[in-house]
Amino acid sequence: MQRKYSVILGNLGNTCDRFCSSYKENPSTIDMLKKAVQIPFVEGIELVGTWDIKPENANQMKKAFDDYGMKCVSIIPDLFANSIYWKGSYSSKDASVRRQSIDYTRKMCEIAIMMGCDLLNIWPGQDGYDYLLTAEYDNERQWLCEAIASLATEFKGIKFALEYKPKEPRTHSYIARMADSLLLAQESGCDNVGVTIDTGHAFNAGEVVAESIVLAKRAGNKLMHMHFNDNYTAWDDDMIVGSVHTVCYLETLYWLDRCGYDGYLSMDQYPYREDAAGAIGESIQWLVKFDTVLNENRYKIDELVKLGNAVETSKFLRSVLA
Amino acid sequence: MQRKYSVILGNLGNTCDRFCSSYKENPSTIDMLKKAVQIPFVEGIELVGTWDIKPENANQMKKAFDDYGMKCVSIIPDLFANSIYWKGSYSSKDASVRRQSIDYTRKMCEIAIMMGCDLLNIWPGQDGYDYLLTAEYDNERQWLCEAIASLATEFKGIKFALEYKPKEPRTHSYIARMADSLLLAQESGCDNVGVTIDTGHAFNAGEVVAESIVLAKRAGNKLMHMHFNDNYTAWDDDMIVGSVHTVCYLETLYWLDRCGYDGYLSMDQYPYREDAAGAIGESIQWLVKFDTVLNENRYKIDELVKLGNAVETSKFLRSVLA
Amino acid sequence: MQRKYSVILGNLGNTCDRFCSSYKENPSTIDMLKKAVQIPFVEGIELVGTWDIKPENANQMKKAFDDYGMKCVSIIPDLFANSIYWKGSYSSKDASVRRQSIDYTRKMCEIAIMMGCDLLNIWPGQDGYDYLLTAEYDNERQWLCEAIASLATEFKGIKFALEYKPKEPRTHSYIARMADSLLLAQESGCDNVGVTIDTGHAFNAGEVVAESIVLAKRAGNKLMHMHFNDNYTAWDDDMIVGSVHTVCYLETLYWLDRCGYDGYLSMDQYPYREDAAGAIGESIQWLVKFDTVLNENRYKIDELVKLGNAVETSKFLRSVLA
Amino acid sequence: MQRKYSVILGNLGNTCDRFCSSYKENPSTIDMLKKAVQIPFVEGIELVGTWDIKPENANQMKKAFDDYGMKCVSIIPDLFANSIYWKGSYSSKDASVRRQSIDYTRKMCEIAIMMGCDLLNIWPGQDGYDYLLTAEYDNERQWLCEAIASLATEFKGIKFALEYKPKEPRTHSYIARMADSLLLAQESGCDNVGVTIDTGHAFNAGEVVAESIVLAKRAGNKLMHMHFNDNYTAWDDDMIVGSVHTVCYLETLYWLDRCGYDGYLSMDQYPYREDAAGAIGESIQWLVKFDTVLNENRYKIDELVKLGNAVETSKFLRSVLA
Repeated sequence: MQRKYSVILGNLGNTCDRFCSSYKENPSTIDMLKKAVQIPFVEGIELVGTWDIKPENANQMKKAFDDYGMKCVSIIPDLFANSIYWKGSYSSKDASVRRQSIDYTRKMCEIAIMMGCDLLNIWPGQDGYDYLLTAEYDNERQWLCEAIASLATEFKGIKFALEYKPKEPRTHSYIARMADSLLLAQESGCDNVGVTIDTGHAFNAGEVVAESIVLAKRAGNKLMHMHFNDNYTAWDDDMIVGSVHTVCYLETLYWLDRCGYDGYLSMDQYPYREDAAGAIGESIQWLVKFDTVLNENRYKIDELVKLGNAVETSKFLRSVLA
Repeated sequence: MQRKYSVILGNLGNTCDRFCSSYKENPSTIDMLKKAVQIPFVEGIELVGTWDIKPENANQMKKAFDDYGMKCVSIIPDLFANSIYWKGSYSSKDASVRRQSIDYTRKMCEIAIMMGCDLLNIWPGQDGYDYLLTAEYDNERQWLCEAIASLATEFKGIKFALEYKPKEPRTHSYIARMADSLLLAQESGCDNVGVTIDTGHAFNAGEVVAESIVLAKRAGNKLMHMHFNDNYTAWDDDMIVGSVHTVCYLETLYWLDRCGYDGYLSMDQYPYREDAAGAIGESIQWLVKFDTVLNENRYKIDELVKLGNAVETSKFLRSVLA
Repeated sequence: MQRKYSVILGNLGNTCDRFCSSYKENPSTIDMLKKAVQIPFVEGIELVGTWDIKPENANQMKKAFDDYGMKCVSIIPDLFANSIYWKGSYSSKDASVRRQSIDYTRKMCEIAIMMGCDLLNIWPGQDGYDYLLTAEYDNERQWLCEAIASLATEFKGIKFALEYKPKEPRTHSYIARMADSLLLAQESGCDNVGVTIDTGHAFNAGEVVAESIVLAKRAGNKLMHMHFNDNYTAWDDDMIVGSVHTVCYLETLYWLDRCGYDGYLSMDQYPYREDAAGAIGESIQWLVKFDTVLNENRYKIDELVKLGNAVETSKFLRSVLA
Repeated sequence: MQRKYSVILGNLGNTCDRFCSSYKENPSTIDMLKKAVQIPFVEGIELVGTWDIKPENANQMKKAFDDYGMKCVSIIPDLFANSIYWKGSYSSKDASVRRQSIDYTRKMCEIAIMMGCDLLNIWPGQDGYDYLLTAEYDNERQWLCEAIASLATEFKGIKFALEYKPKEPRTHSYIARMADSLLLAQESGCDNVGVTIDTGHAFNAGEVVAESIVLAKRAGNKLMHMHFNDNYTAWDDDMIVGSVHTVCYLETLYWLDRCGYDGYLSMDQYPYREDAAGAIGESIQWLVKFDTVLNENRYKIDELVKLGNAVETSKFLRSVLA
């Protein structure tokens, strides 16, 4: 499979956390774009709604993308940085907030169309809960589902890829794991609703990415997008691919191919204290390396997963790694 | 809702772990039964196939249950202690093992019918994988699904309640979380396939039990059975209810009622170093206490979950606990 | 033991995370102080250096504290929000940053003396590392130790309470757990270096707070300060006490008394979406309730911890909770 | 540094867990020994007291070791499989059990001397607690400390290497992490008390092994022994080295050398469903590979850890792995 690499533009910007409001400088959108296009293998860009793109600058961005020969791979509506959504967007207890989040997403769909982009990456990070006995799980999930369904019905040409994550910023997210995202996609009744795997979010959820890829495949070829990064398992550290884990990326690429995934491999990192372009570039280079290993050993891997012998798998891994 | 309490018989037996093969004595099945029926509130018993019940002793057990006025709440086929299933039962790479696991479960269904029991609690603990690049996730999940579907089709009068657990004894189980269990139930195409929540397994999976109850409700009223215990989150410690967590049990009971659950609350513990009957009895007594709180405050809780104000929820909890 | 309650002033201010820069308003220091003093039982305040207090406003703050009859319980030097420390303060690879962090702390010591405060709560949140093979653990720990030792030698009248936390903002902190903090206190060779337990950080570290209190006692009565909050174990959620866990707080208070702790119980929360004064007030009220239970049952608890019978402990807990 | 590899003999035996009492056959001690000596690079063996060695067979084992040219690297007293220690050995609430555990260990010391072995690997797995408010942390830790001190004082020629592990079989162990083990070693007042790192236990504790090695070095060169295996972080899965993690082993070997470690690298796995000799052999082969990488790049790594640039570290890792 010919890989297509992309990056979320904001990864090249400033970083912060709840303790320190700014670790770096604040580059302009265009400055970030210039850096992104210089990263080897990058062919596409993901844009965060409002921050990177809005009705006012959409034409300018379209032109910039054309000039750089870049594909707009996804629009990510900002349902997390705008404090109006501090207690949820699509699932907010406040009906007017729910309406606003849908209206806002609709605008992002229109911009996507304008940019020639066919995918909205939906990460409703504020939709969830923190404390026990403070949420109406039934109604809130229903509202979330209805919002997605109404948008997907209205914009049939756009893929709505639900990006699951078990927690952060809420202690518990409504779109938390692969399987509940698939249930929600089903409930929406829309073929154009599917799932984004962020490898780090999957680690946080205790999932093996390759198995999650297969779950999505079995539920009707529902894997629409991929975000890559690494972490120490317990939290979404958003690190360079290969910093902590190694084998799982090889397995992930193998199963992406076996399940016929043809979307982008997009880098989604948070380089708090690192050179952003360097950190993102490294992730891609690791994936390119793993792809080389995969292409040279695909049939061997076919045999190994059929065989199910950990010692044989280890021997193989030693021969191709280290 | 009138609660119905039950217990897994083997909880009253010996305990061991991978280091120590026996912490206690080995009581007979009848001795365990005698202990179980003396635990206040217990009206039903779950039996592990082969260990507690088999064709040879089924009549005798039926009589003993009748004598004690006990209901056989579920049969749990032994898909985990028999080493023939060491690398999986329904999803084994070995077709003959898959057949054997289905044949064996069929026998357990027949025993269940004989015992007047309408529920098989299916915990295929060995079905999963340990090492990356050793499993064919697609085929193995398919075999698992086909086995469940064929059994559920054959025994339409029996509920097949899938008990999910993210890990142990395998590092990764195929039936791992609420949502993937619901997907499997759907794939089976059988109305009589649903889910068992073990509270401790849900904690291990990072789930809030109450939200999982709602997920099951939304997927077609799929919650068929409940196992109760407590743990420190990271592992299935199988402790007394209320030892570590408190609030979540109150919330769980509230949502069980709100979702119309009318099955048993079954105790599933592993009292390694505790008096078994005492430890199980304690769990039930805690639940009875939480139920009292719930019954006196149901409308207040209705308001709190609608309101979504953590400070108000805390005030309420302080007024009813501590 | 007569409890003394306090709060970190900034808990009453704005909240943010890496996604959303502001969930609330930005109240002034004096506004926060006015709110803090109205929380029942609060007798003391902790101030974050630079943010709440600096040479320019120290006199004014001293007067305000006197007017309100408040004790300045601790100064927390800002070693985490100032981006100069983005890769460490006392343990930075850059010697000039190390010097600056010591000079800055020295100023905070002088302000503490002026405020009649005898404790610096040292949380060097940026001191640690993120990626493997990027840190010189030996040199960096040595620098950290030398900095603490030199400050503690210079300001013998001030207690330096090291607040440990396993991670965040770095993926790994150098002052990570109770026992390594005690080792560092020992290495400093200064009697006035000890430890702060933040209950939530201890949960993150897999510790049982009560055991950590005992470790500090055994290492020479090294527990100097306590921060209280709750979380779901995996992350520093900084929630209201009692939201997730219950029993552990009762046990914590019991062992604080048994080990002769006479410092403050300070609330350290991060009420992202809650009324701050309400959330902090709730935590104190929970602790007051647990204290009532403790005072009525101290001898019973003495017996239970000597006995070591989980069923008896459960019975007792049921009788005092729920 | 010339590496010396060894293996715990029992790794080559049967496996079980709390659900299944036997996954494999039960080979004899001599059969296991025959398998162990055939694993490439193995020069030494660790023996579990009572199971592998006891007064009755010590002479025979000595002869077998001599015949095979094997070194007895450590004796591991059985403080975990004997149900007399079900609620603790050195720290049991029962004084007669405490005495028995010391007497038993004394016998193991005598056997060690006879075998020409200078190290006891002390893993008191049952020493800890499960439930809150059931332990006297102060007295129990004191008893544990006194037991170690009395043994180490009596047998000055033997190194007592404390193997820490945060949990299992108890939910909380007393010897849980590197730093608390170092505190205990200090409290013992004996130079011949130190620490064993089991890499998997360190992962479970949230530690980076390399940093733990440095902690032990700083506390007086206290690292006495190393056990190797891999896991998914949350539990002691005891898998083949390199199955889940890669980079951390390279870093571990680098810091072992930098801290002057000259003990054995011992394999401690639990190959539930794998060919044991194959699985252990794989771990050693991975370590040999990482050592090759290390030897070719030691100065480069010196620079990288001094530099602290994650992108440069990643570039290096890509060049030597994958």
